Amino acid sequence: MKNQDSIIETLYKIPEPALRRLPWYLAYVKLLQQEGEEYVSSTQIAKKINVDASQIAKDLSFVSITGKTRVGYEVNSLVKVLESFLGFNKRHKAVLFGVGSLGAALLQDSGLSQYGLEVISGYDIRPEIIGKEINNIPVYHIDQFKTQQTIQPISIGIVTVPVNKAQEIADYMIEQGIKAIWNFTPFRINVPKDIVIQNTSLYAHLAVMFNRLNTL
Amino acid sequence: MKNQDSIIETLYKIPEPALRRLPWYLAYVKLLQQEGEEYVSSTQIAKKINVDASQIAKDLSFVSITGKTRVGYEVNSLVKVLESFLGFNKRHKAVLFGVGSLGAALLQDSGLSQYGLEVISGYDIRPEIIGKEINNIPVYHIDQFKTQQTIQPISIGIVTVPVNKAQEIADYMIEQGIKAIWNFTPFRINVPKDIVIQNTSLYAHLAVMFNRLNTL
Repeated sequence: MKNQDSIIETLYKIPEPALRRLPWYLAYVKLLQQEGEEYVSSTQIAKKINVDASQIAKDLSFVSITGKTRVGYEVNSLVKVLESFLGFNKRHKAVLFGVGSLGAALLQDSGLSQYGLEVISGYDIRPEIIGKEINNIPVYHIDQFKTQQTIQPISIGIVTVPVNKAQEIADYMIEQGIKAIWNFTPFRINVPKDIVIQNTSLYAHLAVMFNRLNTL
Repeated sequence: MKNQDSIIETLYKIPEPALRRLPWYLAYVKLLQQEGEEYVSSTQIAKKINVDASQIAKDLSFVSITGKTRVGYEVNSLVKVLESFLGFNKRHKAVLFGVGSLGAALLQDSGLSQYGLEVISGYDIRPEIIGKEINNIPVYHIDQFKTQQTIQPISIGIVTVPVNKAQEIADYMIEQGIKAIWNFTPFRINVPKDIVIQNTSLYAHLAVMFNRLNTL
């Protein structure tokens, strides 16, 4: 596993830990922008973010921006370059499978669209939700996805189905042309190598918090 | 930073990566339980979860369960022990700060309470939301938190405020007795050493997915 992972990793331009830190820098630099600051150094970011300045400089070397000696990075350019590198300034259309409690909650979060993800439809199997709209997003029966993909093909799919349906739904989504899966279930979905999978298990984070709290 | 982190890490009984994997095992073993399976081996879990069997055995050595030679772990016991170790079978009361789009969405997710987190109130500053209820959870003005803490002290606080308010709100929460912060903003909040912080940035995960998708 480890070997395979590191081979896949080298195919990408930027390692995942670095990529995950970039949104932290962006969030802070946007604050500076709001406050009217013109320049920011990696040392200044380091103090606020609790990451070594050398690490920050290294991470930022993956995006096309160079700081000036003594003054650092230009704030406006850094915001623009980071947003573009992270894909937040583009529209990415997505579909969501499993309009249960968490699924419906995600459809209601307009934050996703601010960061470039536009969920255009939800899919479920429960008759009571099919045909309804949540936050102006229509909910269809899962079987209709095949037809919808011929009308407007979508590459990103969010999975918020029950654990015991996660693999089956993912297989179906991939069969219908989905290229990236954002998996919110705690189930480890198996996907072919050319499919992007991003796991976000809120409940795993919850477990870490409970455990740390008990250890205090 | 690295040294400090590793010192903190050794204070805990189980390393964070292992802790984060336990919910995956739990999800899979619960599926087996539903299917009526009696025993499961680490090799069997390994095949489904894409983690080395030796790693799984090591991770499970942190929870008090021992497998039997040849047959493996008893499914019912493993579910019970994992749920208890992860804190999912206890009620943990929490409050949420920032009842905006993401905050309101989280109040609507009953999944959190299934995993042991019961959000009992929301706090905001916008007059149009204060005094309302979302999913039967009352929303108060942030200033009222101080009084509420004297009536029913809560240790866990969720932060879903705008980025530029994250640090200020966290400081206030800690001042009023919050011991663990679940931070959903992309801002890196600074907390004293005895406060647990768990960062869950949905938008950072989104960035990883966009980047990987573009590299395909």
